[in-house]
Order: sequence, then structure tokens, then C-alpha cells
Amino acid sequence: MPIAFAQRLNQVETSAIRELFKLLGKPGIISFAGGFPDSAMFDVDGIRAASAAALAQEPGAALQYGATEGYQPLREQLAAFMASKGVQGVAPEGLIVTTGSQQALDLVAKTLIDPGDKVIVEAPTFLATIQCFRLYGADLVGAPIDGDGVQVDRLEQLIAEHRPKLVYLIPTFGNPSGATLSLERRKKVLELAVKYQTVIVEDDPYGDLYFGEAPPPSLLALSSQVPGSRDWLVHCGSLSKVLSPGLRVGWMVAPPELLARAVMCKQFSDAHTSTFAQATAAHYLQAGRMPATLANVRAVYAERAQAMGDALRSELGDAVDFVQPRGGLFVWARLTGAGGALADGNALAKRAIDKGVAFVPGAPFFCGAPDAATLRLSFATADVVRIRDGIARLAQALRA
Amino acid sequence: MPIAFAQRLNQVETSAIRELFKLLGKPGIISFAGGFPDSAMFDVDGIRAASAAALAQEPGAALQYGATEGYQPLREQLAAFMASKGVQGVAPEGLIVTTGSQQALDLVAKTLIDPGDKVIVEAPTFLATIQCFRLYGADLVGAPIDGDGVQVDRLEQLIAEHRPKLVYLIPTFGNPSGATLSLERRKKVLELAVKYQTVIVEDDPYGDLYFGEAPPPSLLALSSQVPGSRDWLVHCGSLSKVLSPGLRVGWMVAPPELLARAVMCKQFSDAHTSTFAQATAAHYLQAGRMPATLANVRAVYAERAQAMGDALRSELGDAVDFVQPRGGLFVWARLTGAGGALADGNALAKRAIDKGVAFVPGAPFFCGAPDAATLRLSFATADVVRIRDGIARLAQALRA
Repeated sequence: MPIAFAQRLNQVETSAIRELFKLLGKPGIISFAGGFPDSAMFDVDGIRAASAAALAQEPGAALQYGATEGYQPLREQLAAFMASKGVQGVAPEGLIVTTGSQQALDLVAKTLIDPGDKVIVEAPTFLATIQCFRLYGADLVGAPIDGDGVQVDRLEQLIAEHRPKLVYLIPTFGNPSGATLSLERRKKVLELAVKYQTVIVEDDPYGDLYFGEAPPPSLLALSSQVPGSRDWLVHCGSLSKVLSPGLRVGWMVAPPELLARAVMCKQFSDAHTSTFAQATAAHYLQAGRMPATLANVRAVYAERAQAMGDALRSELGDAVDFVQPRGGLFVWARLTGAGGALADGNALAKRAIDKGVAFVPGAPFFCGAPDAATLRLSFATADVVRIRDGIARLAQALRA
Repeated sequence: MPIAFAQRLNQVETSAIRELFKLLGKPGIISFAGGFPDSAMFDVDGIRAASAAALAQEPGAALQYGATEGYQPLREQLAAFMASKGVQGVAPEGLIVTTGSQQALDLVAKTLIDPGDKVIVEAPTFLATIQCFRLYGADLVGAPIDGDGVQVDRLEQLIAEHRPKLVYLIPTFGNPSGATLSLERRKKVLELAVKYQTVIVEDDPYGDLYFGEAPPPSLLALSSQVPGSRDWLVHCGSLSKVLSPGLRVGWMVAPPELLARAVMCKQFSDAHTSTFAQATAAHYLQAGRMPATLANVRAVYAERAQAMGDALRSELGDAVDFVQPRGGLFVWARLTGAGGALADGNALAKRAIDKGVAFVPGAPFFCGAPDAATLRLSFATADVVRIRDGIARLAQALRA
């Protein structure tokens, strides 16, 4: 008799992307498939100094069990970091530290979702959110997006129809879409939260990675303009994309009663996030290195995004359609089939591997009916020369 | 309208101990209430060197996203560490790294437990296990223990009656009981796993903290002697009690199909454990510092355990009954009521705070009917002088 596993595991399917990722080990491949920052850009010196300071100044605290809510000096630094970005009225006690923002999503789900509950997400959205919520039995409903983010009229219809437990959005430089919700739509989303008494989860790992003009303020920052909206808003932040994923430091802002329950769930999930990593992050922020680090990553990713957009236009022409990203890590492209070219992302991904370039087809990012013509291309980890080379290979694959 | 939380939260009650812990901030209190190691004994120099080596030798890997299964060099070191303790046949791929062993418990539950499933635990057992499993809807059944650990005849009856999804045990220096399962009973437990095709979870955070003679081999080490038992055995290990809780590095050994599902659940729980912490732990183990660290903590805790036992005998006499611990962090004592003395742990805990000493009453550690006369006293964090002082205060509280 085999082990009888929990029924929740039947909700989840991970094979599509796993199969693709197995192929990435092929020698010489240029990968646009990842969803991670370039490790060559980590501020290793700054992190080394921060870690050394933590062990020199508070070794006991940095290596001991800590409060489930988070290491207090880090909570203070994160509150100040958000305040510097226009967020008003979030005290250190108004946020908890999570083991990456992935854990914030898990805690949101554990705290809120009963099996069968409806949850609205963007179509497409972050793959690990889909799977995370499904493990708690969520019934996902996809809300359509365009270049300005989720279509709020359609979102309102879906909220009214499904009365979801929560709405999950990546309003700024979405994964995989790269789209940014307009200011007008942001205000509308906050109004919908109040009107329908619906929790809105704002996942914001990319908001600091803008290339030119800053994006509109986060939903959290704007919530002070929409009375009552803070009572329904959860905001998830992360140091993973701007500083280091390996620290696994994220955070979550939420109404007090939700935050208290998330703390209880976290207590029995991992007790607390590594105090060693938290103390390191606190010293890093305190040392004032973040502005220079952000300026550096913004400049490098901006150049790469531009190179990828230019190459896509010159190499693939009207065979692809995309919005040039203004931040984040991704180009979200759609195969148009122009001139009889291939218009299937999965089929192109296989051909592309043969030509020595990898990306993620867009279909798995949809919780419902997928747009099979879509692709997600990350410009974050290849330099400009390799980006041009990789897109040339992609063009060959398309013509093959 | 307030936020509607998930029904699973109704399963959990955390107020009893939280209320007590709020009182611990009182100045001058001597606390035997914690369940953590003494931070004065952390090998800060060793951890500093290990962290610096990780950032010097593999900064990219130590700060980047990593495999959900764990950082490969750490998996290799942990497999070697277990082999040095007599565990045969566990390859690096046979274990995954978890964010403390608390996360291993969460993953076991997420992977195996459907609402309403029966789970057998020791009575008493680790409080956070009770709450963790209940959050997944487990219906807990307590199996009685004595000084030699769980009573295996009674355990077999309970397995046959309840057909549990799993049996959770802390066989070595249990929390809170301090009890150690005898060799004979260990073999019987493994035989029961095979006979009833029942998953056994061995939680082993304290096994390295022995004071004289080593305890019997872990269930994992013994499983090679009981054919088929490895197919039903999950083993959770941790560096928290011997090296540093703040790293949040634990691990889990399990049959391949269970391990694969735990990896999937972990992917959507926190993506992976901090690679920075994992690389630090890997370098620490590789540097060969663990044997000296273990020798140090064993010697210090042995002295403190002896001091606490002696003080309890001389100060409280026949008003308490306990087995002198041979390892771990805890004395588990029972108020006998001799001479008309107080025999209620909760009532004594309140009086004790007034006298300037804290401990955790035993009742919350029972999933079912509690033994209200019990107390958990940690000897780990106070030195010998304060232990004697604290037990003298406890005697005053008992006579008050």
C-alpha cells in the first residue's frame, strides 16, 4: 500500500515548466527563462559588511530565536523604506517579516482561503501564486489585463459575480505581463475593495525596478486617499529583486486582525524568518546603501530591456507584439502569426531550445483558458550582447 | 463587515502560553520557561568565519535563489553529519533542507493531512506540533508516555483503533517530557510502522544533546534493522539546538515520493530556505567545528541539568516527582500534592511569577485531557547559580 497523500495535492500541476527547466542545462544555452535578478549585480561588499556588523554588534540576537513578527530593527528599517516611497502611516508594528514574499502569499492563503473559495487573479499572473492558492483549495478566476494592468470594469463585474475571498494583483511591472496599473485604475481598485468589502492583495516585488519615470504610487501608498481602503488591503514587499533573493526577506502589511492571524500561522509554519538574514538586511538598510544599489540595478536592467525590445523589433518584426517594459524583469510578448509564422508559445519554446535559447511559454501563467500565443522573456540575467544573440536565435527558431 | 477568515483558524488556541509569556518581561525574573539554547554558548567566531567563507567563495550562489530541495553543499554536509551518527544509506538527495524543523512539520502536515484525519502524538508533546497539525484539520489522539517514552502496547492499540495518517514522536529527550524511548521500544515502533503501514514522524532536535552515555540510535539509524520501515519513516533534524536557531536550518529525510511532494509544497511556501544561512551552515560543518561545539554544549547543559535536579530534590522534596534528564533542555516535573502542597501547574505558574521565577505549566502540551499537575522547566538558559536561586523561589511559591 502506498502512502495516502492529502487531497489538496491533487489541485496542483507543476510538470509543464519543470520539464522545460530540465532542458536549461544544455551547454551554451542563452536563457531568458528565469525570474530572478542577475547575481553579478549583488552588492556583496555591502552584504558582507552588514552581516559582519550584525554578528559584531548583536550576535546573541542575530543567532537566537526571534519574534515571529520579525526582528524589530528590520521592521523599523522596512517601515522607513516604505515611508521613503510615499507610504503613510505604516508603523514597524504594522508589518511582519516573511520568508520571502512567497511566504506572505502562503500566509494570506492559510489565513483566508477555505476550500472552494473564489479568488480573482490577473490573467496571466505569477505561476507560484496560482499553485500556492490552489493548495488551499482556492477556485481561481482570471481577470483580463491590458498594457495598463487589470481591466477594472471587468474586475468589478467579476467581483460582483463571484464575491471572491480576495483579489490578487501585481500592479507594478507584473509577472509575467510587465504591465503597470494606471493611477486611475489604482484608485478604482481601492474603491472596489471598500464597495465590495473585498480583500485586495498587492504583490509588489518589482516596483522599485523602474527605468525612467517612477510608476504610480503603490496601492498601499494611495490607500490614504481612499477612505476605508486600508482595512481591506494587504501589501507584500520583498528585498529579493533589488538586493538578494538568498536572504529570503519579504514583508507584509495588512489590517491588524489579519496580521495577527498571519503571525499565528507563521508561528507554526517556520517559527520566524532567519534572524541572521534579518539582522543582515537591517544593517544593510541602516547603512544607507540601498539608494545606490537601486540606481545601479535600474540602470543595468533599463539597458537590457531596451536591447531586448530593440532586438525583438528588428529580428522578429511583426511576428511579435509587445509593450516595451518601463520596469521589472520581463517582456511579455505575443506571437501574431504574421506571414504564417508560428503562433504557439509551447511549440516555439521547444524549437528555441534546439537553437540555443530558452524562455517560458505564457500558457501556464493563466489560471483558466490560456492565450497559447504568449511568451515571457526575462532580460535580467543576460548582458546586452547575449540578449541580441539570443533574440537572433529566437528569430531563427521562429523561421525554422 | 469584518474580514471572513478561513475556518482552519478556529482549530487553534494559543492564548494560554502567550498570556504567560507576556509576564516574562518583569524585571529580575529567572526564567525556566523558554525552549531555546543559551545564546552565550553560540560559536559566534565559527559562524562569522563560515559566513565570510560563503560570501568569499560563492557569493553568487549564497545570495541568489536556490533549489527548493536545499543548497547542495549543505545537503552533502548534513548527510555526512547523519552518517557520523550511525545513519546508513541517506544520500544528499534523500534529504531536503527546511526553514527550521518547524517547517518540516508544516510540510509533513501539508503533504499528508486532510481535515478530519487522525494523528497520534505523545501525551504530552511539542505544543507547536499540536497547533501546526490542527491548522490542517488533524484530529489528534494522545498516546501515553512514561520515563522510557511512548508506551508501545498502548500505541499499537491506538493505531489499530484510529488508523492514523501518521504518528508523531520525539523519541529522544522529548519536549516537554525529557523522556527517551528505549531501544526495545524503538524497534517495536518501527515494526508497527510496517505492520500497520503507518507513517512515523521522528522529530529529533535534541538527540545530540546527551550528557553522559549516548542515547539509543535514532529511529532513522535503526530503520536499517527493520525491513520495510524506511518506507514509512520521516526524520526531522535541526541545527537550532546545537548551533543556532537564528539560522533556521532544519532538514527532513523521507521516502522519495513523500519528499517530492514536500518539495512541491515548500516551493509554494517559501521557495527555499535562505541560501545565505544554508551556505553559512555548510561552511560551518565543513570546517569541522561541530564536534567541539557539541562537546561544549553537552558539558554546560549537563552541569545545569544536574544543578536543577539537585535543587528540586533539596528544595521541593516529595512535593515534586521527576526523572533526572540525561539530555535535552527540559525537566518535566509533576506536583505530587504531598503534605497538602499545591498540585496545579497553572496556579503555581502564577504564584511563581510573583516570586520572580517562570516556567511553563504542563497542561497545554496535552492534545486531550491534560495532566494539570505537570510543569516544564528548562535548565538551558540560566547558569547554575541562577538555577539554584530560581528553584528556591519556586519552593517559596509552592509554600505561599
